[in-house]
Amino acid sequence: MDADLRTLRERLAEIADLQRAMAVLGWDQRVSMPRLGAPARAEQLATLGRIAHERFTSDEIGRLLEELRPLEESLPYDSDDASLVRVTRRDWEKNRRVPAELRAETIRAAAQGQQVWIEARANNDFAAFLPALERNFELRRRYVECFEWEDSPYTPLLDDFEPLMETTEVAEVFDTIKPVLSELVKEAPRVDASFLDVPFDPDRQRELCTRLLDTLGFEPGSWRLDPTVHPFCISFSTRDVRMTTRYQPIGLDSIWSTMHEAGHGQYAHGISPSLERTPLANAPSLGLNESQSRTWENLVGRSLPFWAHWYEPLQATFPDQLGHVSLDRFLAAINRAEPGLIRVEADETTYSLHIILRFDLEQRLVDGSLAPKDLPEAWSAGMKDLLGVDVPDDAQGVLQDTHWASGGIGYFPTYALGNVISLQLWAVVREALPDLDAQMEAGDLRPLSAWLTENLYSLGRKLTPKETIERLTGSPAIDPQPYLAYLREKLSALPAGA
Amino acid sequence: MDADLRTLRERLAEIADLQRAMAVLGWDQRVSMPRLGAPARAEQLATLGRIAHERFTSDEIGRLLEELRPLEESLPYDSDDASLVRVTRRDWEKNRRVPAELRAETIRAAAQGQQVWIEARANNDFAAFLPALERNFELRRRYVECFEWEDSPYTPLLDDFEPLMETTEVAEVFDTIKPVLSELVKEAPRVDASFLDVPFDPDRQRELCTRLLDTLGFEPGSWRLDPTVHPFCISFSTRDVRMTTRYQPIGLDSIWSTMHEAGHGQYAHGISPSLERTPLANAPSLGLNESQSRTWENLVGRSLPFWAHWYEPLQATFPDQLGHVSLDRFLAAINRAEPGLIRVEADETTYSLHIILRFDLEQRLVDGSLAPKDLPEAWSAGMKDLLGVDVPDDAQGVLQDTHWASGGIGYFPTYALGNVISLQLWAVVREALPDLDAQMEAGDLRPLSAWLTENLYSLGRKLTPKETIERLTGSPAIDPQPYLAYLREKLSALPAGA
Repeated sequence: MDADLRTLRERLAEIADLQRAMAVLGWDQRVSMPRLGAPARAEQLATLGRIAHERFTSDEIGRLLEELRPLEESLPYDSDDASLVRVTRRDWEKNRRVPAELRAETIRAAAQGQQVWIEARANNDFAAFLPALERNFELRRRYVECFEWEDSPYTPLLDDFEPLMETTEVAEVFDTIKPVLSELVKEAPRVDASFLDVPFDPDRQRELCTRLLDTLGFEPGSWRLDPTVHPFCISFSTRDVRMTTRYQPIGLDSIWSTMHEAGHGQYAHGISPSLERTPLANAPSLGLNESQSRTWENLVGRSLPFWAHWYEPLQATFPDQLGHVSLDRFLAAINRAEPGLIRVEADETTYSLHIILRFDLEQRLVDGSLAPKDLPEAWSAGMKDLLGVDVPDDAQGVLQDTHWASGGIGYFPTYALGNVISLQLWAVVREALPDLDAQMEAGDLRPLSAWLTENLYSLGRKLTPKETIERLTGSPAIDPQPYLAYLREKLSALPAGA
Repeated sequence: MDADLRTLRERLAEIADLQRAMAVLGWDQRVSMPRLGAPARAEQLATLGRIAHERFTSDEIGRLLEELRPLEESLPYDSDDASLVRVTRRDWEKNRRVPAELRAETIRAAAQGQQVWIEARANNDFAAFLPALERNFELRRRYVECFEWEDSPYTPLLDDFEPLMETTEVAEVFDTIKPVLSELVKEAPRVDASFLDVPFDPDRQRELCTRLLDTLGFEPGSWRLDPTVHPFCISFSTRDVRMTTRYQPIGLDSIWSTMHEAGHGQYAHGISPSLERTPLANAPSLGLNESQSRTWENLVGRSLPFWAHWYEPLQATFPDQLGHVSLDRFLAAINRAEPGLIRVEADETTYSLHIILRFDLEQRLVDGSLAPKDLPEAWSAGMKDLLGVDVPDDAQGVLQDTHWASGGIGYFPTYALGNVISLQLWAVVREALPDLDAQMEAGDLRPLSAWLTENLYSLGRKLTPKETIERLTGSPAIDPQPYLAYLREKLSALPAGA
């Protein structure tokens, strides 16, 4: 049995190495790669993906997992070894259904689509983007056909990002929050944020963001922050965490974009070293992962205690722009609700409405009731309906996100689920850390990082998403009420007509 | 037969993808990776290396190569397909002798050693470096044992970088050049270069180096230049060429370091697209590759015609430092011969003497007549003997290069061979391009790039190193005389006591 476990661990470590190597290639593509490197990169990724898939779905791994059942059952449920066997078995059974060639082709098309998207977005050229979009959806439909599903063909796609959740469950959560959010946006007081709508030197933004990251609890020498077109975070081990952000010439969005990616980074950094090079060295779901990016971006990064410490350094960095702006006005501006066109720039209240639009469109694209070519029109109609805004062009519409171009279909809902979950977990955090406000006011974020690492991040994927939520909150349910209560309270505290 | 060829090409393409992926991981380690990412990176590289090795040395590839013999013999010797079968067969026979585990362990130790070296060099700490050094030499000795050799156990190591060359051949070339170089250094006039020994703003150095690269003939969007500790060039396809350089606060070495890596970059960029994703998509040897880095660094980058165009822009970039320095004085300074401690900063005349020292020490480390722990002493004695300089510390001595720490044993001689070969090929270039000086004076380097691409770079590894030299010069011999004549002429043209 020990020999079987050792063999399984060795095989899985090799597969993890291949997947981390793919992550390096993906990071490089999005951060460093010259434009013309794209075709070769797509082949490299496809080859690594096919080899990893073939090795993972081998008979040998299936046999080892079977032979390790007695060991699994003899060990505590959340032990590293029992979890490894249990979680790997589900992954194996799922991946066995997918032909290696389809996997390789999907990875290739995703890498190609990513590059097409960059140029299509820059040129506001939906027509150039359409073939990549069609190709990626076509491949995802072939993927769906590998599975049986009950409620919706969208569920197998969702499962890749939010394991064990059905489309109907997401719809239920969204149906609850949608009318409340719409109402909140309508009623929210208009807040003057024009002082943020001015130039801020990108080099100083970068310096400040790096200073911020230095205080979050990362071990020195275990991370880096780079500029990119579409911010993301990826890790190659718990001690090689790559965050990216973008420094716009106007405004300070880079701060929250950086804090957001730092939340993902904290998760990756906090996973137990005992899980390295196993399939467990990840968050249980993107919703849980996103709950932490939203925690650091919003629950920390838009809070009074956080800015009680950081507003002075911010003012000192940008005295011309902020020297005359009070902390109260600044806080009101960064917590306001205001419909806009761009998801990644959306405030906390409108953000989930952007997601609800994408969730709706994705499902229709997957079930065939919407053709990719009709997407811009459907997008505009949805934005008008949900947020009351007119979409002036595709670059600010359907071309704004990289996900569909690069095969990330079923990914979007996890952002809004993350918003919801973040507040469920935050209630637990606040109870566990009664001095949190004082710590944030002192600029000390390490106690928060340490608590989340110990109680959440270190678990990796040992438990399912719902088991993980239950471990922290006492209930497996995804409950949108704390999220809605938080937004209500926040918006009602805004100075009317400030 | 066609099906066999197709299958062979598919298998080799996958292996090429794995190797290019390893190159991305290596580039990232040396350019971007945070310090603590090193252990995981070593595992990732070892896994990819083992898989690539296992796939390449498979019985299937051996069988395909056998079955393709008739096809190979029916095609022109230098056709893509005949060359593919012939060259791959030699690679296969060589690699079959090496156990996959040894290959993986060597790659792992190299990646670990690279990281140890960075810190040991920064801290001038040979003791910290010694275990990595011993480990890497030990693994290389085990590698040597996989082969039969006639003249020296060093030959199998050399063969990895300079295929089909024996140690005795290198020794013969070095025995010819060593006394002449020593003599030339002794007799060279002292030239005042103090105006280069002052601060030059690194950002402006970077800007100028990028401008330079823009004129060499690279397709836009196919390369990038990054700063690193120890400059190198690597490529992930002919259209994804990564050059690195270093911008020191004092002096302008970055210009020649950039031109040097650009020479390697030109080679990688010029390989025929028909050879992509095959074992032929590389230079025939490091000596030939280096001949081109030295061509662009020295034969172009230290020449009067080149600076006739570029000196004005350089002066405009650094008016305070160079505004008062004449082109003649500048040219004398950058062409002077002067013993120094650091190989990568060495002038053309002393450079090969640094190599001769390393070649001697490497052989003794490999045959066991020198113990790694005694290396600093042997280094100092050699530097005194060859260049007449005293080595003040290990950081400026044995710790200056990354090669031995990262398994690159047998690599050094190719630098000096590159010097020698560069002049053999340059004679052919000058004959073929009678207007070259005028083109360089006009700042137009594209005709040179195009000629070298067509006649050399595009061939890739289709021919052996000597066949390649013969294709260009009419003789397979490595002849040091043009190199020595070039140095003699250059040094005698220097203004005595300038």
